[in-house]
Amino acid sequence: MSDGEGAGRVGLWLVGACGSVGVTTTVGALAVRAGLAGRVGLVAEQPEIAAAGLPALDDLVIGGHDLDVETLVKRAERLAAGGVLPAGILPPIAGELAEVEGRLRTGYDRAGEEPQGVAVERLSADLVAFREEHGLERVVVVDVASTEPPAEVVAGGPLADPDALDAALAAGESPLPASSVYVLAAYRAGCPVVSFTPSPGPRLPVLVALAERAGLPWAGSDGKTGETLLKSALAPMFATRALQVNAWASYNMLGGGDGATLADPDNARSKLVTKAQGLEAMLGHPVEGPMHIDYVPDHGDWKTAIDHVSFEGFLGVRMSLQFTWNGCDSALAAPLVLDLARLTLRAQQAGESGPLPFGFFFKDPAGSTEHRLGTQWEELVAWCARVGA
Amino acid sequence: MSDGEGAGRVGLWLVGACGSVGVTTTVGALAVRAGLAGRVGLVAEQPEIAAAGLPALDDLVIGGHDLDVETLVKRAERLAAGGVLPAGILPPIAGELAEVEGRLRTGYDRAGEEPQGVAVERLSADLVAFREEHGLERVVVVDVASTEPPAEVVAGGPLADPDALDAALAAGESPLPASSVYVLAAYRAGCPVVSFTPSPGPRLPVLVALAERAGLPWAGSDGKTGETLLKSALAPMFATRALQVNAWASYNMLGGGDGATLADPDNARSKLVTKAQGLEAMLGHPVEGPMHIDYVPDHGDWKTAIDHVSFEGFLGVRMSLQFTWNGCDSALAAPLVLDLARLTLRAQQAGESGPLPFGFFFKDPAGSTEHRLGTQWEELVAWCARVGA
Amino acid sequence: MSDGEGAGRVGLWLVGACGSVGVTTTVGALAVRAGLAGRVGLVAEQPEIAAAGLPALDDLVIGGHDLDVETLVKRAERLAAGGVLPAGILPPIAGELAEVEGRLRTGYDRAGEEPQGVAVERLSADLVAFREEHGLERVVVVDVASTEPPAEVVAGGPLADPDALDAALAAGESPLPASSVYVLAAYRAGCPVVSFTPSPGPRLPVLVALAERAGLPWAGSDGKTGETLLKSALAPMFATRALQVNAWASYNMLGGGDGATLADPDNARSKLVTKAQGLEAMLGHPVEGPMHIDYVPDHGDWKTAIDHVSFEGFLGVRMSLQFTWNGCDSALAAPLVLDLARLTLRAQQAGESGPLPFGFFFKDPAGSTEHRLGTQWEELVAWCARVGA
Amino acid sequence: MSDGEGAGRVGLWLVGACGSVGVTTTVGALAVRAGLAGRVGLVAEQPEIAAAGLPALDDLVIGGHDLDVETLVKRAERLAAGGVLPAGILPPIAGELAEVEGRLRTGYDRAGEEPQGVAVERLSADLVAFREEHGLERVVVVDVASTEPPAEVVAGGPLADPDALDAALAAGESPLPASSVYVLAAYRAGCPVVSFTPSPGPRLPVLVALAERAGLPWAGSDGKTGETLLKSALAPMFATRALQVNAWASYNMLGGGDGATLADPDNARSKLVTKAQGLEAMLGHPVEGPMHIDYVPDHGDWKTAIDHVSFEGFLGVRMSLQFTWNGCDSALAAPLVLDLARLTLRAQQAGESGPLPFGFFFKDPAGSTEHRLGTQWEELVAWCARVGA
Repeated sequence: MSDGEGAGRVGLWLVGACGSVGVTTTVGALAVRAGLAGRVGLVAEQPEIAAAGLPALDDLVIGGHDLDVETLVKRAERLAAGGVLPAGILPPIAGELAEVEGRLRTGYDRAGEEPQGVAVERLSADLVAFREEHGLERVVVVDVASTEPPAEVVAGGPLADPDALDAALAAGESPLPASSVYVLAAYRAGCPVVSFTPSPGPRLPVLVALAERAGLPWAGSDGKTGETLLKSALAPMFATRALQVNAWASYNMLGGGDGATLADPDNARSKLVTKAQGLEAMLGHPVEGPMHIDYVPDHGDWKTAIDHVSFEGFLGVRMSLQFTWNGCDSALAAPLVLDLARLTLRAQQAGESGPLPFGFFFKDPAGSTEHRLGTQWEELVAWCARVGA
Repeated sequence: MSDGEGAGRVGLWLVGACGSVGVTTTVGALAVRAGLAGRVGLVAEQPEIAAAGLPALDDLVIGGHDLDVETLVKRAERLAAGGVLPAGILPPIAGELAEVEGRLRTGYDRAGEEPQGVAVERLSADLVAFREEHGLERVVVVDVASTEPPAEVVAGGPLADPDALDAALAAGESPLPASSVYVLAAYRAGCPVVSFTPSPGPRLPVLVALAERAGLPWAGSDGKTGETLLKSALAPMFATRALQVNAWASYNMLGGGDGATLADPDNARSKLVTKAQGLEAMLGHPVEGPMHIDYVPDHGDWKTAIDHVSFEGFLGVRMSLQFTWNGCDSALAAPLVLDLARLTLRAQQAGESGPLPFGFFFKDPAGSTEHRLGTQWEELVAWCARVGA
Repeated sequence: MSDGEGAGRVGLWLVGACGSVGVTTTVGALAVRAGLAGRVGLVAEQPEIAAAGLPALDDLVIGGHDLDVETLVKRAERLAAGGVLPAGILPPIAGELAEVEGRLRTGYDRAGEEPQGVAVERLSADLVAFREEHGLERVVVVDVASTEPPAEVVAGGPLADPDALDAALAAGESPLPASSVYVLAAYRAGCPVVSFTPSPGPRLPVLVALAERAGLPWAGSDGKTGETLLKSALAPMFATRALQVNAWASYNMLGGGDGATLADPDNARSKLVTKAQGLEAMLGHPVEGPMHIDYVPDHGDWKTAIDHVSFEGFLGVRMSLQFTWNGCDSALAAPLVLDLARLTLRAQQAGESGPLPFGFFFKDPAGSTEHRLGTQWEELVAWCARVGA
Repeated sequence: MSDGEGAGRVGLWLVGACGSVGVTTTVGALAVRAGLAGRVGLVAEQPEIAAAGLPALDDLVIGGHDLDVETLVKRAERLAAGGVLPAGILPPIAGELAEVEGRLRTGYDRAGEEPQGVAVERLSADLVAFREEHGLERVVVVDVASTEPPAEVVAGGPLADPDALDAALAAGESPLPASSVYVLAAYRAGCPVVSFTPSPGPRLPVLVALAERAGLPWAGSDGKTGETLLKSALAPMFATRALQVNAWASYNMLGGGDGATLADPDNARSKLVTKAQGLEAMLGHPVEGPMHIDYVPDHGDWKTAIDHVSFEGFLGVRMSLQFTWNGCDSALAAPLVLDLARLTLRAQQAGESGPLPFGFFFKDPAGSTEHRLGTQWEELVAWCARVGA
């Protein structure tokens, strides 16, 4: 059957539910269900992926955490005014949207006073309550909150070792990045996790170990929605044609909430690192070239990526490729969030555990060094075929 | 062994040997052999392809047909002046280049008086003489001559039926496009064929049948070196991400010999048809958008392709991708000619016949509807593994 | 005073009132007046131009001709849905917009039966009635209708000679292009004219003579809103820097009503001719390079112009400039229509006659061979200073 | 007469004679004289400029300072290999080029031990010796050396006050940036100065005062050869059309010697400051948008500037312009150096003093806030007409 065996209702819990991506995901799911929008952009609606037997969009109940839980509807209105959400889409789903807002719970603020041990308990209880209240078979937690800086892991320390983490939390310490607090809470509640941001989240060794121990599947990280998506389509062309890329310049302008966050160089570091590593892997050698992410408020939720590639062909002839990608980040990310939620829920149902082979969706694919989009697609299709068999 | 079993000397016979591509192929092969140039751009030098056990570049003896056989060296000098061939590469190989020029023979001119039956005999004898004189195990004929208009095939006529063709030639008629005259001559001489142009060449039903009858392998057609190469890398990205391409505009400027030929709309038709069909196949639906090929003499041997793609994502949001490809056509084509020659010679040695699965190299892949570059690469790698096993 | 001496109410009569440009002009004027929109894009609001003592936007009464007079409001709604008019702008001006629709009169259809002599009388009477009914001091007629093909003028014929034209009309003949019928009607009613399209309109020798005879000013033609605007800013840079432009390729995609019209090569001819001539004038020599205008319905009211310029500098070094202009044609044209209306009304008030020095606004400036934007701006400023003195 | 009244021989002294721009200037002058190259790129060859009565190119004797004086010929060969100088241009002028190399003298190294008072004497003596040895009527000093960081000027200090400077030099101190040491030496020798770089050079208040005192003309600063040139052509278009520029992103990649210098953020600061100020002046308001200068060695002497402009038109409609400029910096700069040398020599001959109205050539025009290219051109033409009258 196409939409999941024994398909009861399942839950999608968004960390950062009131951000652009979170809101677009929620509005989009409600709009598609209501027949107000088509299925363009939803990877899981293709037969090769649907073959896995995924839970239906209609069966997804949405809730989430955010620091300010009363802004979902307001943010949706702002996105509609900015052209990210189509005019007229909100009124027909206003009731349901308010229901989702009602299901939001206050998130964890690393700048606050709450000890992380307490926070984990609280967030975990939110997840269990959500699951029970709505009679959900399973709940997946997807992180679409703002980017955090990379974390420094010390061998044997609380970011590496489960016992050290337990001890630290018991002692009232707060060693984890916020993104990892949510992941720990999810694992405590038996929920699989998707990290759609470059934040540490489930990538810390201590959480990799805890997922393993709990037999939970997880996927990440950093959704591949723009420039890196194009790189993963184009770099294999240069490689298989034996053309030598000498320089690849990457210029990004974005104006949304994520833009403001990335204007802080500390936060941008996570992103820049994951963006660079794939290119080297695909081309087989490091490539010079500037990479900038600039915050240009005027661009709003739109992202412009301009890349300039200098390469060399037979007999040393110099050539170039330049592209401009003009994309709406939220519109590109939101359907992938829905896809990943459905795929990860299916993975849990199928008894999978550890990092899932979903590199097709990510800039920094967990458990894999494969960055070529075509090959990642085939890996995904193969997984779906296997799980759906 | 890496470079062909029982690797005796083999021949590469270029139809259109004095054109930009033909000359760059010849100069390039001599320069690489002499250690004057590296192997950038040569697909066959990658381990996945070399695994087929290909004849070595060093074992290739080059000859060819052209309408004016005394222009190879002069054309090489012109290409060096235009920056297509690196300054200083010609003097060290002058002797060998003159030898190749000495091996050229007068081609077939459709505008002339020679009946095609006579021409086929003559061209075929040229090939046999070349093979015998140089003690070659095999000779592959590669068409790099100017583009011809499409041919109209009538069922049962000489372009469709071997007997009708025999009868027409016997009657002194000349029904074939020039490109197909060369192919027929090749088959008569027991030579496999590569069609690097969009001309009819080996694609006429009568020649498909004759290749089959002779048990000869062949490959084609229309080398994928620029805009279409990019399309075949990018279109699968849109397709697998479920993004809906609404319009794909394709603007091409080129100034070389091929540019002048394509300024004639009749000749351009072949090219435009093969360029368009792949996109529809990869996206699963026809796509509107202008496609122009313009002759701009100032561009010389350089080709600029500018493409603008309008697409739609989740919730109907409109986005765009634009790219500019600035490539040197001859430098992109020449190494592929060498690759295809070596692969096709290996195919004949291995007893393969009919259209070869070399779609990776072609805009209009014979015997396949697969246009996705990544998948074509894997097909090629699989073939090499099988043949080399 | 800044807004015209003795500033009574004046009229703007739009030929093609229900097209994209006509509707955007009308909605824009009403919205600015109502304080719903700012004055961005209105050239006449700059102090150097306002110095002429122009009629105020508030004093403009709008009416017009169209073949289908009941579509103004509907078209406005369509433009709002397409993002050309801001969401929310229509409701507050709905009453006034309906009033304008009520003032529209049926235009002249060259494909119909009405003899041109009759049409001229009828259209002229519409203008007089409009002026009288609203107590207007003056009315300017601005052509924003679809592009027509160029007209062939024969010396002594009705397109060249007033007497021959009179005779032809009296004989029931219809020798004029539609755009010129409106101009003749305007002149009969004592109204100055602005031709915002490349159609023949007031440029026919017979109408140049009749304007002269009537002492009426007129301005034209073909609003400079996109690619040609950029050319007129950039070409003088190459010229004054003594850089040699070798090729200038111009690719235009547009999807609006004008796009469909221009998909007919006959109509496109007018546009292509006026687009090409300026470049040669500014650079001092003809320049090779393709120029295409393609209809891509998906682009809607948006126009994408992609230009690629190859040029040569000191010591023959080859360089390039490429630009992509992504503009909304109606939003670029509409404020210029308002500017030209106010300037031309002021010209009539000031007793000017013949072609006005308003080349700043036009691709094909009447009465001038000056195409450089900067110089055109200074000519305009000088005229405003003189008239306003 | 067209080429200067009483035109005796005159001198061009290049500070940084062995850099890319210096070498291209020298080779270019010799090549044009020898009839090996045309006059493309030479602004002064246009009749409006030649009207000033400029010294002829043939009358220019070239010498210069550099830290390493034996690299002129070697650098020329490197530029020829890189395609900046045409193949074959060097052999015919080899003798003259060696002569110029023989006239080079060791420059001033701020990192060395030489006190600036001593250096000024030495450099000044070099200029006088050059003038006398070659019987030159006048010598202009043009700075084409590497970019320095901005200098901090303290009121009453040696960078502001001539007496304080004298005292500092007498005390063996070295307060000046290197670029200003050369200017001081030039003024001591009675030579006018052109600053083609963004270095402080003649812009320090103390040197402005000393030029005034000496009655010497000077011109500067920072040659406008690429992105800023385009900005000065395009920004007036937005301004006069009343279009509101919301963001202007500027990305620059360059690989030459200047690129390496600018990779040091201290040095880049000079450049970034002068690049930004013009835009604000032309648009009338500050504009957000990133501005990067990145060093990409692979680009060699080529500079790629990619600009993305977001602007708003009538009724708030959002539009964009993007351009890519692919220029050869040395080939763009060298002819302007020759132009400025001839113009400044003519200015001195004509008795002009202080900053010259040559803003047409500069990013940071001394003595002017006018950045619009068209207006700068007219100012230059007016000056030439006046001087040549």
